[in-house]
Amino acid sequence: MRLDAYQTLEKRFKRIHLLKSIGHLLRWDGAVMMPAGSTGIRAEQLALLETESNSILRSSQTSRLLDSAEAAEARLSDWQQANLREMRRLWRHACAIPNRLVNAFHRATTSAEMRWREAVDRNDFALLAPHLEKVITAVRDKAQVLGDAMHCPPYDALLDEHDPGRSATELNVVFNKVKAELPALISPIIERQSVQPPAQPRLPIAEARQKDLCKQVMTAIGFPFDKGRLDESLHPFTEGTAEDIRITTRFERENFLIGLMAVLHETGHAMYDFGLPARWSTQPVGRDRGMGIHESQALFLEMMIGRSRQFMNFCAPLVARIFGASGAQWTADNLYREVTQVKRSLVRMHADEVTYPIHVLLRWELEQELFRGVLAVKHLPEAWNEKMQMYLGVASEDANTGCLQDSHWPMGYFGYFSTYMTGSVIAAQLFAAVQNDLPDVMDKVANGDFVPLFAWLQRNIYCRGASLSSAELVRQATGGAVNPDCLLAYLQNKYLFD
Amino acid sequence: MRLDAYQTLEKRFKRIHLLKSIGHLLRWDGAVMMPAGSTGIRAEQLALLETESNSILRSSQTSRLLDSAEAAEARLSDWQQANLREMRRLWRHACAIPNRLVNAFHRATTSAEMRWREAVDRNDFALLAPHLEKVITAVRDKAQVLGDAMHCPPYDALLDEHDPGRSATELNVVFNKVKAELPALISPIIERQSVQPPAQPRLPIAEARQKDLCKQVMTAIGFPFDKGRLDESLHPFTEGTAEDIRITTRFERENFLIGLMAVLHETGHAMYDFGLPARWSTQPVGRDRGMGIHESQALFLEMMIGRSRQFMNFCAPLVARIFGASGAQWTADNLYREVTQVKRSLVRMHADEVTYPIHVLLRWELEQELFRGVLAVKHLPEAWNEKMQMYLGVASEDANTGCLQDSHWPMGYFGYFSTYMTGSVIAAQLFAAVQNDLPDVMDKVANGDFVPLFAWLQRNIYCRGASLSSAELVRQATGGAVNPDCLLAYLQNKYLFD
Repeated sequence: MRLDAYQTLEKRFKRIHLLKSIGHLLRWDGAVMMPAGSTGIRAEQLALLETESNSILRSSQTSRLLDSAEAAEARLSDWQQANLREMRRLWRHACAIPNRLVNAFHRATTSAEMRWREAVDRNDFALLAPHLEKVITAVRDKAQVLGDAMHCPPYDALLDEHDPGRSATELNVVFNKVKAELPALISPIIERQSVQPPAQPRLPIAEARQKDLCKQVMTAIGFPFDKGRLDESLHPFTEGTAEDIRITTRFERENFLIGLMAVLHETGHAMYDFGLPARWSTQPVGRDRGMGIHESQALFLEMMIGRSRQFMNFCAPLVARIFGASGAQWTADNLYREVTQVKRSLVRMHADEVTYPIHVLLRWELEQELFRGVLAVKHLPEAWNEKMQMYLGVASEDANTGCLQDSHWPMGYFGYFSTYMTGSVIAAQLFAAVQNDLPDVMDKVANGDFVPLFAWLQRNIYCRGASLSSAELVRQATGGAVNPDCLLAYLQNKYLFD
Repeated sequence: MRLDAYQTLEKRFKRIHLLKSIGHLLRWDGAVMMPAGSTGIRAEQLALLETESNSILRSSQTSRLLDSAEAAEARLSDWQQANLREMRRLWRHACAIPNRLVNAFHRATTSAEMRWREAVDRNDFALLAPHLEKVITAVRDKAQVLGDAMHCPPYDALLDEHDPGRSATELNVVFNKVKAELPALISPIIERQSVQPPAQPRLPIAEARQKDLCKQVMTAIGFPFDKGRLDESLHPFTEGTAEDIRITTRFERENFLIGLMAVLHETGHAMYDFGLPARWSTQPVGRDRGMGIHESQALFLEMMIGRSRQFMNFCAPLVARIFGASGAQWTADNLYREVTQVKRSLVRMHADEVTYPIHVLLRWELEQELFRGVLAVKHLPEAWNEKMQMYLGVASEDANTGCLQDSHWPMGYFGYFSTYMTGSVIAAQLFAAVQNDLPDVMDKVANGDFVPLFAWLQRNIYCRGASLSSAELVRQATGGAVNPDCLLAYLQNKYLFD
């Protein structure tokens, strides 16, 4: 009888999974295929799916079933117990916040996102400011009740939405270390690279050919095209569940590396989702272990693998053949120098591997100050520029390359930026661990053999789903806690001593 | 209080509308975009949407709301009353059939459709036969309870699913007249056409160019590309609701007319859906008036308009310019002769305007016999060939060009084929009516001006939604009842005297 409660929960969460998988497709379609005039009905369709899955989660029956199943937890297998924990976590997030606050949050973010677009069009932060203030109020209210329900500080409750189990205290240690050591590396790296700057591999290459290259690379990596697609959209993204995953990229005709690197990033996300435990595919425990780990998979493939000499040794002949290109700009060595070129730049999305964490650091600090009310929204542009100047030695000339460049805050994504840092840090730890376990793994990559690399990720990350905490997952895979030392050492070795 | 029941129903049916609109997108994606290995989850997603909308329809609350709203019907506007009638009709169809029969029908048709594909692959009807028998049993059981609930003969209840209000008695009159007069026209037409056969406009034309032509034609017709798309799929189809309608076609490199004529057919379907009353877009009364009318819109645009001299006068210069083609095969006159060429052919999907209704007649007669048990499934191939020989003077050499060519029966679509006949008949009546109202409407078409034509359809068909019965809709638009005389006269004039 009591085990039945658990089984009934599995059925309910399978319905939620299906509703979410439909949502993925609708969002993919919205960005890739949908006619421009159909945004209205698409928003209504997505809202309906959200309402349907929330009403399953928030129903009193689900609550009673969770109580019953937990009372008989001892009879469940380890995976079932982990599944039940994840169900409870999702239930808690869905139920903690009263409708009044859900609606206030939705209103504030919907309007701020719209104003953010206008502000970008006019390159004018003042248009967004009052709306962002309302978002921050709504975020604070939400964090307060969520923190109460979870018995944790309000901001940690926000982190838990995106990266379960992470705390601001833990993250502060990481960010402080990065802040103390990384900015100092930039000048020496730039100086060192100036001795032999890359010849820019700039040829106009038709999008169809660039796509052809990307698909060949994805095939070598093991992307299963019978369950996935590659398309184009304004911003690259990954949508789907293991049964059907669609990634997108954006091609620049004169610079194929933009599109290729985005493809590697998204393929990293996709491979993780494809590799999640099939037995649990419809259940919370069969999902990824939060955005920190997810981002680590994307950054691992884009940065550690994609921006390596070995990857370029594999890739350069493909590039030459598919594009019919030859000459000094198209050698593996030159392509490597091009994708590892470090610059003091204004925009996070286009930042290189070394300065990227600094962009994230800046957002982390400003977000804390905004959330705590220490920084007023109207002073955000100056605070932004000050930090840019301090950490990177450049200042944004206008709002669009300054504090208007990301949509996260207007959309209410507080507690999200840190997943990019956690992702970078974990990616470096995984890179050290896989090379320790398989010393020739990068030589294999140079030969286009990605099997050992992805088999290792499958064994150590993918197959765990959400059965372990993020900390435990990282500990089992790398032997240690989340720690930026590995990332700092990796960057130093790669950019100063290699 | 009682008016509230009606308003609550509108809300519930809006949810059903949204769920259905999501289903349209999923089916479009399944045929156009989805990776081959994702059929499993797609089937589950579609089943979930179906379950969700059925559970709204079949809930006891909906039933109580319908009773309350009907009790206070006098307070509702005409459109609201019509909406309530449509709600009740949908409710009746959803609730009449017990779950046991729904499941039996689903099992039988799912398995028969799968076996139909195998049978087609092996060109062997015997593989399908036992499964088709089970489908027919399930169809009969369903028709029986549906007929009881609707107080009509069982077969009429099936017709009502696809073409509300149509009866077998009415249709028999139509089919008998067509049977008495149409087969006799074929020989004289073929003889007459043999004097000057068309030069075949066969050039290999890249799909992208063919698509370009089709999009220019669609744009001239008024297809709103900000709310719709044209893509390619194995079989042409239309999916969507007025907010987002996607049509597909299939291009043959050596014969662009295949793709273009399919585009006209599907554009006819789409223009109807786009033109439905926007005020009622989420409600049953805002939907189309059944598949008979829907098919009439598709056949009207494909046959009466697309296969006219005037359309070819408009189209030939576009063809010449986009394809860079010239010569005798590419004149408007030759293209017209090509698309009106009559042949004794085996396959309905490729049949010309004159023989098409005969293909439908054959199916109508065989379907009646199968349903009544007068014809045993195992004798279907012989019965098929006999009728083909009798009506068209050809016999199918194998099953795939014979009784295996359509998937309707394996899929349980009994009562559907007749909508193709009703569609042809109504299309001819509309063609006569619009020319009567607007004598120069086809001259406008020749100049690429489709505005008067579609404004007339908008006024007379589209804007009605499902507010009138099909019979009343046809009567108001054409001044008469559904009657094949118009079609027969139209074919005679066009093919023997023009």
